Amino acid sequence: MTPELRPFTSHAAAFASGARTPRDFLETCLEALENWEPRIGAFTATDVSGARAAADAATLRWQAGRPLSAIDGMPLGIKDIIDTDNLPTQMGSPLFEGHVPRFTAASAWALREAGGAILGKTVTTEFASTKPRGTRNPWDVARTPGGSSSGSGAAVAAGIVAGALGTQVVGSIIRPSGYTGVYGFKPSVGGINRGGSLDMLSQSTTGPMAASLSDAWCMARAIAERVGGDPGYPGLAGPLTLPEARQPRALALLQTAGWSLLHADAAAALNIALEALMARGVAILTAEACPELAELERLVADAKALSNGINAWEWLWPLGAFAARDEAALSPSARDRLAVARHMTRGDYVALLERRATARAVHGRLAALCDGMISVSATGAAPVGLESTGDPVFAAPGSVLGIPAVSLPILRSEGLPLGLQLLGFQDRDAALFSHAAWIEAAMPAREG
Amino acid sequence: MTPELRPFTSHAAAFASGARTPRDFLETCLEALENWEPRIGAFTATDVSGARAAADAATLRWQAGRPLSAIDGMPLGIKDIIDTDNLPTQMGSPLFEGHVPRFTAASAWALREAGGAILGKTVTTEFASTKPRGTRNPWDVARTPGGSSSGSGAAVAAGIVAGALGTQVVGSIIRPSGYTGVYGFKPSVGGINRGGSLDMLSQSTTGPMAASLSDAWCMARAIAERVGGDPGYPGLAGPLTLPEARQPRALALLQTAGWSLLHADAAAALNIALEALMARGVAILTAEACPELAELERLVADAKALSNGINAWEWLWPLGAFAARDEAALSPSARDRLAVARHMTRGDYVALLERRATARAVHGRLAALCDGMISVSATGAAPVGLESTGDPVFAAPGSVLGIPAVSLPILRSEGLPLGLQLLGFQDRDAALFSHAAWIEAAMPAREG
Repeated sequence: MTPELRPFTSHAAAFASGARTPRDFLETCLEALENWEPRIGAFTATDVSGARAAADAATLRWQAGRPLSAIDGMPLGIKDIIDTDNLPTQMGSPLFEGHVPRFTAASAWALREAGGAILGKTVTTEFASTKPRGTRNPWDVARTPGGSSSGSGAAVAAGIVAGALGTQVVGSIIRPSGYTGVYGFKPSVGGINRGGSLDMLSQSTTGPMAASLSDAWCMARAIAERVGGDPGYPGLAGPLTLPEARQPRALALLQTAGWSLLHADAAAALNIALEALMARGVAILTAEACPELAELERLVADAKALSNGINAWEWLWPLGAFAARDEAALSPSARDRLAVARHMTRGDYVALLERRATARAVHGRLAALCDGMISVSATGAAPVGLESTGDPVFAAPGSVLGIPAVSLPILRSEGLPLGLQLLGFQDRDAALFSHAAWIEAAMPAREG
Repeated sequence: MTPELRPFTSHAAAFASGARTPRDFLETCLEALENWEPRIGAFTATDVSGARAAADAATLRWQAGRPLSAIDGMPLGIKDIIDTDNLPTQMGSPLFEGHVPRFTAASAWALREAGGAILGKTVTTEFASTKPRGTRNPWDVARTPGGSSSGSGAAVAAGIVAGALGTQVVGSIIRPSGYTGVYGFKPSVGGINRGGSLDMLSQSTTGPMAASLSDAWCMARAIAERVGGDPGYPGLAGPLTLPEARQPRALALLQTAGWSLLHADAAAALNIALEALMARGVAILTAEACPELAELERLVADAKALSNGINAWEWLWPLGAFAARDEAALSPSARDRLAVARHMTRGDYVALLERRATARAVHGRLAALCDGMISVSATGAAPVGLESTGDPVFAAPGSVLGIPAVSLPILRSEGLPLGLQLLGFQDRDAALFSHAAWIEAAMPAREG
């Protein structure tokens, strides 16, 4: 079996004419569920009858010319740190075994309001952090799909859903999207309301992983339109459907900490992409020629360590409260994180926040020089084994900077998917999608 | 019975010497609980044995010279929108009847870690918003104690606890503190970690209501020291005990929307206070003489309406998710708020955020001209009746501006308590307390 993406929003005209229906679409997804789920373990819980009911209702609305949104009837997965009132939300932890929240989180509730057919909850590592929970990569079941949004990447890659929610605080959307060959979107910080998700960290975001760029954008905008961004933030703005493709004039090649770890075949694939862009008239800036970019690269060189420090303090609570209830139910990595946090002071944390703010300010000034940055989603293909979810080193700078990032599944490493990562500017997510759409169309046909 | 505040931190030396013990202190509080609670209804749940165990443990630590904090053993109440894993957390709503959260919220967990003796959960209006839940004012049980932190104000005023957590998004700490004659502290936005509290609004803060200025400060700093502020914010900084008293050079008299509603006796009491300050050498700026202040007054003139607009959008979720489960369980005022939110767009919200940001920027520039602003906590004494919790008009500007505010219980209206409100500058909460301590000492003895 070869994984096959199943884009949804491209069928709008067929749904409207009745040539195709969201219910038919869902049934194809359910076949994929049956075929793939025993091999990959992407879900913690499913609600087939609920999804069918939602797809049927959407079918009628499309045919009446009154769809609730571009994603009306779209089969969806929800990462299992996001509360749902009808399905257990277990946070990848035995501490939450069987836990069914009283109320549905903002993002999932908005997807329901937009007509989404929520098929189930997707596997997350423990508390969306490091400890994996067994999901396998559909491209090679001996490999991880990445994390922490493991199930969301695997489920979309296998065509079980057209889109699924992930969350990223270091690399948890971009990395698994690259490893599983799906379209990943980490919005600007604050872009999508995180209420009702165990996801309170200051650089964390909720975002879609989907079967097409359009599917990812439409999901994200459908949410922000209904429940906004995080309180106090403007929330994701722009058209309700995919922004028009637009050529970027210049992109900055971000060569940070991960660069020395980049697999040779991944570097070669990236170079081919860069050459294709240059051939089409896109200037590629590098640090050698651009001191502002060199300064930024220096400031985000330890983006992983900086993130881990900030996140550790921000995890002191609730990890401390979890430990007070049942410390043995925490993984060793969670207990380690709590120990790190207990040795930090508020002053240590403030110093890290200041370093992050400096990096963000320097990045902001790059907007005068380029339309965004370009990089890869990970060091290469997904690693073999399920003990680790891979290295987030290429995703960490975007998380630290709080900027929008997209992973386009158009590179290859070891014959497996790898993402081309594009990074935009804070709250200019729609412009990033315009450029991403142009770049996807401009790329040479991908090789298997 | 006359309400009597029961300050805790002033007994540190006696706790250390053994002349007094936190357990003795608690027993006096428990007598007050027995005498007052049937009359005022400040608590939704109590845990007397847990509080006694905490006070006993604190007693030993003080006598061993190793108290966990300045509030080790302090009897405390927790507003019932803040999760506790051992007591129901019912949010003032039938939707949460009997709900016992799995984990304790950041602020309550930090108070436990600091040795606090948590005696119970205090009554909140529905979701800390408008609908009252019957608590009475110990100064006159025919009157409201204010809201939404109704039980916290009443419990502290009656001497049942030395401090209690409140939350404020418009006027829910400052107003009830004034009406019940307790020390209220609304920190800078982000100052105290709100994790695990049904309190996600962008201008909301968690803060103490307490029996002395020192008790309020020590509670707040004990929390921030352990769990920081909201993720991404530096959190409340400063000494762990009350900052040293310091005379302000100049204070701005904030004469905003509420001014025309101010009761004559409240205005007279405020004037006496202002004259006392001027007699001691504090300059009082007014808008007539200070165009920057006039500009600010103009920008926050509709602070209540601006707050209500921002809050409505930010309540769309979770109110929408609550309504999806059981709309009939929402009060008419909650349903009205949801209806308002459903008619707003993300664009409307962004426009309101921009207005708020403008007001904050103008306020920030006042720091060159004065040490803070001065006002009152409410239009006068607590109103008669339990149907309304009073008008938050005097507290709303501080909430909109995101600045620290203190209510000192040193004014009177109708022979009942009224607060002198002091407002500081963002993240300069410790300076505000220095000035508040000086002002309290400088005031003429209060009249009954």
